[in-house]
Amino acid sequence: MLFDLTIPAFIKTLGNLQKILDKSAAFADAKKIAPEVLLQSRLAPDMFPLIRQIQIICDTAKLGASRLTGKEAPTHDDKEVTLAEIKTRIDSVVTYLKTFKPEDFKGAEERKISQPRWEGKWMTGEEYTLHHILPNLYFHTTTAYAILRHNGVEIGKKDYLGDMPYKH
Amino acid sequence: MLFDLTIPAFIKTLGNLQKILDKSAAFADAKKIAPEVLLQSRLAPDMFPLIRQIQIICDTAKLGASRLTGKEAPTHDDKEVTLAEIKTRIDSVVTYLKTFKPEDFKGAEERKISQPRWEGKWMTGEEYTLHHILPNLYFHTTTAYAILRHNGVEIGKKDYLGDMPYKH
Repeated sequence: MLFDLTIPAFIKTLGNLQKILDKSAAFADAKKIAPEVLLQSRLAPDMFPLIRQIQIICDTAKLGASRLTGKEAPTHDDKEVTLAEIKTRIDSVVTYLKTFKPEDFKGAEERKISQPRWEGKWMTGEEYTLHHILPNLYFHTTTAYAILRHNGVEIGKKDYLGDMPYKH
Repeated sequence: MLFDLTIPAFIKTLGNLQKILDKSAAFADAKKIAPEVLLQSRLAPDMFPLIRQIQIICDTAKLGASRLTGKEAPTHDDKEVTLAEIKTRIDSVVTYLKTFKPEDFKGAEERKISQPRWEGKWMTGEEYTLHHILPNLYFHTTTAYAILRHNGVEIGKKDYLGDMPYKH
């Protein structure tokens, strides 16, 4: 059931990201630097900076859910500059994701998915989830994490993974 | 079906990693540096270097498959130093993964999964796959990618994502 593979993972990942950004804001505050310095940091001159990584994480989740279900997504214009603005965008995507119910994903496995840059090519919803959505979601989240870690923010893999459903 | 979420993604990811390492070897050769310099690179002094990231990717796949199915995994002693040695380890894990069939995963969703560092806690096979295996697999693969990208190796997200099942 593609709902189980997507919506809960999206909401969890975006929640973890919010907490990582809060730790980054506290780090910036302690170092007396603007948090936007971190948002403009990158790991190589031709890689996207942190703020763009976050925008892509948001879009991977938002457009993934929308394309799998046919449910219209809110638009975002990629004009965020401040930490407060990008955190608001994350919240807006989480609000959208929370409107989804498992029944919205009926038939999503076999749905033909395409997007403009694929120039007419397509894959099934299941393939899209396994080959595109999940690898991209975690790619950009890990890259965001790595940019912050490289800059000295004290975060660890537990911040990336978030709460685990351990039972005793 | 947890087979579909794990074995093909593991084999694909490890295959992509092999190609990324081949490009890294060519980069090192062109720059006249030993590829082991890259293997010892890291993004922060208290993060694991590339070679350890690769070992963890291997173990996430190998132990994930083994724990979900109860099928014994080959052992590896984490003593690799050279690029050839770590590539051999990846191959050995791929060989193991190719022995799995969908029927090996019968009942895996509900199987109680634990590991030594969880100190007696457990989660279901489905939770383990979604909250642990996939986020960790992509975390360490992206970190490996980011270390190489940060060092100037000419790779792009397509190398990380690998072949896409596009249809026309």
